[in-house]
Amino acid sequence: MPRLGEVFSFGMTAPSDMSALIAAIAEGRIDPVAVVCIYVKTEGNGQDNDFSRDVAAMTLQGIFSRYGAAPVLIASGGCEGVLSPHYIVVQRRDVQDAQTDDTRALAVGHARTRLLAPEEIGTLGQVRATAEAVETAMQDAGMTAADVAFVQIKAALLTDAAIADAMGRKVEVRAIRPHASKPLTRAACAIGVAAALGEVDMAGLNDASLEDGRLQTSRAIVTPGNTDMRCDIIVFGHASGWIGPHRVGATALQDLIDLKSATGLLRRLGFTPDPQLAVTESTRIDGVLFKGDPPAAEVIRGRRHVIWRDSDIQPPRHVRAAVGGMLSSLLGNTRVFCAGGAEHQGPEGGGVLVVFSREASNA
Amino acid sequence: MPRLGEVFSFGMTAPSDMSALIAAIAEGRIDPVAVVCIYVKTEGNGQDNDFSRDVAAMTLQGIFSRYGAAPVLIASGGCEGVLSPHYIVVQRRDVQDAQTDDTRALAVGHARTRLLAPEEIGTLGQVRATAEAVETAMQDAGMTAADVAFVQIKAALLTDAAIADAMGRKVEVRAIRPHASKPLTRAACAIGVAAALGEVDMAGLNDASLEDGRLQTSRAIVTPGNTDMRCDIIVFGHASGWIGPHRVGATALQDLIDLKSATGLLRRLGFTPDPQLAVTESTRIDGVLFKGDPPAAEVIRGRRHVIWRDSDIQPPRHVRAAVGGMLSSLLGNTRVFCAGGAEHQGPEGGGVLVVFSREASNA
Amino acid sequence: MPRLGEVFSFGMTAPSDMSALIAAIAEGRIDPVAVVCIYVKTEGNGQDNDFSRDVAAMTLQGIFSRYGAAPVLIASGGCEGVLSPHYIVVQRRDVQDAQTDDTRALAVGHARTRLLAPEEIGTLGQVRATAEAVETAMQDAGMTAADVAFVQIKAALLTDAAIADAMGRKVEVRAIRPHASKPLTRAACAIGVAAALGEVDMAGLNDASLEDGRLQTSRAIVTPGNTDMRCDIIVFGHASGWIGPHRVGATALQDLIDLKSATGLLRRLGFTPDPQLAVTESTRIDGVLFKGDPPAAEVIRGRRHVIWRDSDIQPPRHVRAAVGGMLSSLLGNTRVFCAGGAEHQGPEGGGVLVVFSREASNA
Amino acid sequence: MPRLGEVFSFGMTAPSDMSALIAAIAEGRIDPVAVVCIYVKTEGNGQDNDFSRDVAAMTLQGIFSRYGAAPVLIASGGCEGVLSPHYIVVQRRDVQDAQTDDTRALAVGHARTRLLAPEEIGTLGQVRATAEAVETAMQDAGMTAADVAFVQIKAALLTDAAIADAMGRKVEVRAIRPHASKPLTRAACAIGVAAALGEVDMAGLNDASLEDGRLQTSRAIVTPGNTDMRCDIIVFGHASGWIGPHRVGATALQDLIDLKSATGLLRRLGFTPDPQLAVTESTRIDGVLFKGDPPAAEVIRGRRHVIWRDSDIQPPRHVRAAVGGMLSSLLGNTRVFCAGGAEHQGPEGGGVLVVFSREASNA
Repeated sequence: MPRLGEVFSFGMTAPSDMSALIAAIAEGRIDPVAVVCIYVKTEGNGQDNDFSRDVAAMTLQGIFSRYGAAPVLIASGGCEGVLSPHYIVVQRRDVQDAQTDDTRALAVGHARTRLLAPEEIGTLGQVRATAEAVETAMQDAGMTAADVAFVQIKAALLTDAAIADAMGRKVEVRAIRPHASKPLTRAACAIGVAAALGEVDMAGLNDASLEDGRLQTSRAIVTPGNTDMRCDIIVFGHASGWIGPHRVGATALQDLIDLKSATGLLRRLGFTPDPQLAVTESTRIDGVLFKGDPPAAEVIRGRRHVIWRDSDIQPPRHVRAAVGGMLSSLLGNTRVFCAGGAEHQGPEGGGVLVVFSREASNA
Repeated sequence: MPRLGEVFSFGMTAPSDMSALIAAIAEGRIDPVAVVCIYVKTEGNGQDNDFSRDVAAMTLQGIFSRYGAAPVLIASGGCEGVLSPHYIVVQRRDVQDAQTDDTRALAVGHARTRLLAPEEIGTLGQVRATAEAVETAMQDAGMTAADVAFVQIKAALLTDAAIADAMGRKVEVRAIRPHASKPLTRAACAIGVAAALGEVDMAGLNDASLEDGRLQTSRAIVTPGNTDMRCDIIVFGHASGWIGPHRVGATALQDLIDLKSATGLLRRLGFTPDPQLAVTESTRIDGVLFKGDPPAAEVIRGRRHVIWRDSDIQPPRHVRAAVGGMLSSLLGNTRVFCAGGAEHQGPEGGGVLVVFSREASNA
Repeated sequence: MPRLGEVFSFGMTAPSDMSALIAAIAEGRIDPVAVVCIYVKTEGNGQDNDFSRDVAAMTLQGIFSRYGAAPVLIASGGCEGVLSPHYIVVQRRDVQDAQTDDTRALAVGHARTRLLAPEEIGTLGQVRATAEAVETAMQDAGMTAADVAFVQIKAALLTDAAIADAMGRKVEVRAIRPHASKPLTRAACAIGVAAALGEVDMAGLNDASLEDGRLQTSRAIVTPGNTDMRCDIIVFGHASGWIGPHRVGATALQDLIDLKSATGLLRRLGFTPDPQLAVTESTRIDGVLFKGDPPAAEVIRGRRHVIWRDSDIQPPRHVRAAVGGMLSSLLGNTRVFCAGGAEHQGPEGGGVLVVFSREASNA
Repeated sequence: MPRLGEVFSFGMTAPSDMSALIAAIAEGRIDPVAVVCIYVKTEGNGQDNDFSRDVAAMTLQGIFSRYGAAPVLIASGGCEGVLSPHYIVVQRRDVQDAQTDDTRALAVGHARTRLLAPEEIGTLGQVRATAEAVETAMQDAGMTAADVAFVQIKAALLTDAAIADAMGRKVEVRAIRPHASKPLTRAACAIGVAAALGEVDMAGLNDASLEDGRLQTSRAIVTPGNTDMRCDIIVFGHASGWIGPHRVGATALQDLIDLKSATGLLRRLGFTPDPQLAVTESTRIDGVLFKGDPPAAEVIRGRRHVIWRDSDIQPPRHVRAAVGGMLSSLLGNTRVFCAGGAEHQGPEGGGVLVVFSREASNA
């Protein structure tokens, strides 16, 4: 029986506003138990003291728990510049009475890593566990590495409890505070994806690899947040056995103003490369993800930037506002899910761009 | 004798770093007494408590006062997102032994309004005085209204002293604090330009016109700052009698993601419309100015934005970061002079874009 | 049967941390249906985009709804300076087998105003409705005006729906956005308290009174937040028929550094006036509330302040940090519930201070 | 011939407003060449991108350079809470025809360290050089260690040039960026003072001592800023041979709400310990300095604080606002020079408080 992968984009009037999702469930367009993951872009500052994400998460958990469902939640605060608060719902379900056509359509696979020990966070152990789970997720969707467009990971981070557990066992952990484990878990997961997809050779890796900026993948976005010492792996690509109009593509941006790579990705997804895609085309875009960081050097294309020197606005907020301005103007659409923390995810000072689109209906 | 209008763009390592200007003066490329105006984009927050502008201004005044010169200074703080601190020097001088060729080149005219009474700020009296000075500045450059690409105004604002003077005479002023006079003086100057250039009919104006959002010009940028109750008017355009490779163009952006109008302007200036101008082309751009504000409605292209709801980042900072991201990525160049406060300057929720370019040398 | 009014103070490790309350309920110290109101001081920025208050509110509603209870919630974000996130639970219940002793103890009364029409917000109609409900609340607690120490109001504010309703009826409302109704509803409620307590004469009031800064009460704190067009009135004082060690006192602070009035209040509550109350004494303080604003003039005790000029930190955040520093150092305790928005609540540029204490046990 | 040490306090309407100083020079009360140092508290954010300090410094340098004078400038941005922008001028001069009375009066000594090598910053070499210069400064004022109330240091920091110089010589420096050298130079200077004053034993020190939080002095405030690889040492105390009404005292604050130690210091300076010193007494205070940091632990007096968790306001800004509120309310005076960066200066989580006062005239 063919499977259908779908991507829905909804706006929010507040972090607690999930009315569009509730309506879609009521109308039967969304089946809560079929939802794989939800991206939520809320209007807080995206920093440690941003509780808009919690409000959205508490609201979504309230909705899904009624159905015994608990989709993977990828939350990010910060709608700087022109960005619009929104959420993206990814669903997959079997479709009875549907014919599998020849075209390959959006495929979605999901797996979880094994339980990680606290001392494995940020090590080759986590890299391997991630790579294995990516394999499992690909099998879940009937994909090979070549079919994969990109991999979203909701990564395990160290909790106070996990750190205390390791300390109690006299075992060293890589970070002694939960916050400090975020870059470590992002790095290990990203390299795990690179290994699973053949972008790097697992056999050649050692602990120092995790700090080797040359290792990178243009097909992973890693978001820390799981507190149960497992990572959720969601692979997106195209495979036979899947139907429907949805497509996905990913590319690396070489720097924060790399409009050229962005337009290249759109072209590969079948869009015309004119600036400001016509409205009929922009409505065929259901999700735009970007993960990137400012360059460590205080220079972009030879010109000084002050992202690291602005004491009032945090670096990720500068990045979201600027890249959001570029992508929103290109797409004619301000729903861009921009976030920071891009270790090994795209080039240093650039990042990874993902676009979910739909084929034009040929009716 | 033909005249040469020139535009120089320099980077800054700090608000006090004017080393490139000092070098250009030493080398004879810039003649202090020939400088008409300087745009300075510093790295502060661009709000009331941003003193980076003062540091730049004090440094520039120190340099020019040695030559008895005092060019018009247009300072703006805020290099949000990818923007780069920089300054733009506009110079005009007579060129002996040069031949006036047939092509029209960048022309620059300057004039000052008459002394305004405090009670005239924000009224039709200021509109008329501005329009008259625009005429004088056009004559100064040998231009007609059709020749004008855009008009930069350094506008008079009310000072504490001016307010006290009016109050002492029992005369009403439109604002009782200097800060509150900024929107008023911007509005009056912008409409004055619109009248001088024939975009609106002076005869049909009354006091209510100053609050009529439908009246607008796409050829003015107004920056308050003069404390001597006079406005500086600098007109830019193309006219015969001027030589050199420099050109200028202006356009309205319909909203903050109006990439289409931006590419249209580049095309008119002779650039190819590809995103991210090739390096050889981007080096032919010497100055990019944008003046715009967020839309009053909390919507851009049908999607909610949160610029007015973000308590941590002021609205102009969001605008500069986002529009800066769009323009920098289009131009491959992060030196964009973005600022807010765009009453009657371009459409509501959009703004005015100006580009200074140089012709490709055909050597 | 005598009644017991109690005040509990709990710390929070996060806006969702209500573990101390849950434990107190489990231990029987707190009876959910006996809780009158809860003050929550969360760690957000206290501005419009602070969602830490929502997280606390959602968590509390989840706890109390299980018992069919819905106490009045007074939430305020912002723990600037040394302030500590905490919440204060006010409970009252009948105490069987207890003897009413002669001493008067903390008394707590509660009432709600009638349903207000949208067009009444910010008018004398709201003043009168508030005054009537204060009377009802005093009767609820068996108090006269002379017994009242202070009145806490959770005030109705205009909602988008209420504004739309009025507009649909072609009736004018005083604010066309919910946010703008906050000062109006605070002002009307505060004057309503002043009238009920005899601090101002209701007969002499007219609409202009609401903007007359000379009218004030030192016995009210008004917090907007109710969206059902009713205000909750909670009166605190001392009356016979109430037992227990809890006491309450209120005073006006004349400015933001009025340490003298603060020590005076402590003295009246039976504390010794030494700076930094000894540990045994500071543990007898269960709640400290302050509501105040910066002075409109940019001067405190003859010296310039820059609260209105700091573009990076909002004025209420300056006030909370500074007054919190003064009160925390005096009390040896950083649990101070500081908030802004003090129209008619204490002197302009000062505010109202409330302290909940317990008598020393004479065992 | 007796010497007179004087302390003047002036308000500022803007970072460039030095009108009170100019007037005092014109009136002969201040002799530019007799000024030892100036403290300037400006209204910026006190972070890296605060240019209000530069404006004040450029203005002061302009004034003093006319007289061939260059007093030591100690600038700090940030007037959070109720703090008032102000500057404090310290002057010393010989007084002809004056009789040395028996009382000891404010004495001021000045010395500079030898030229430090870049690789010495943050090492025992700098500790020793500092201790030696403190000795020289004490001799300059005719003081012994017991006479010293406190030592102000304007410390050398590493510059880009100094770092490059060391790297060129293949010598290791302790910080590879100027900003990162600030804690190092503060630590070395503070311990140097402690050694000179006998608070720690120089013979027992080694490199690890610089990171030993137990070593501290309650008599030093160190402010980095010198770019010529020398430190300015200014010792304040009381000695015979000095006349006039000025006095100085210093004390450690044990935490950020240590009102008790503050009142203790005032008592030692001859003030009555009532909160809010009466006006006649508060006018006898000419300068209040505080240097302190938040505690590393997220607790003050057993209660959680969120200074480290607030992503919007930097930790030093919280400290200045809170401690400023405490001290301003105690003194009835909002001119408090609060700053952060207190390595070894007072207890961890507390700091050093200095008060300059004048004796009541006994006329």
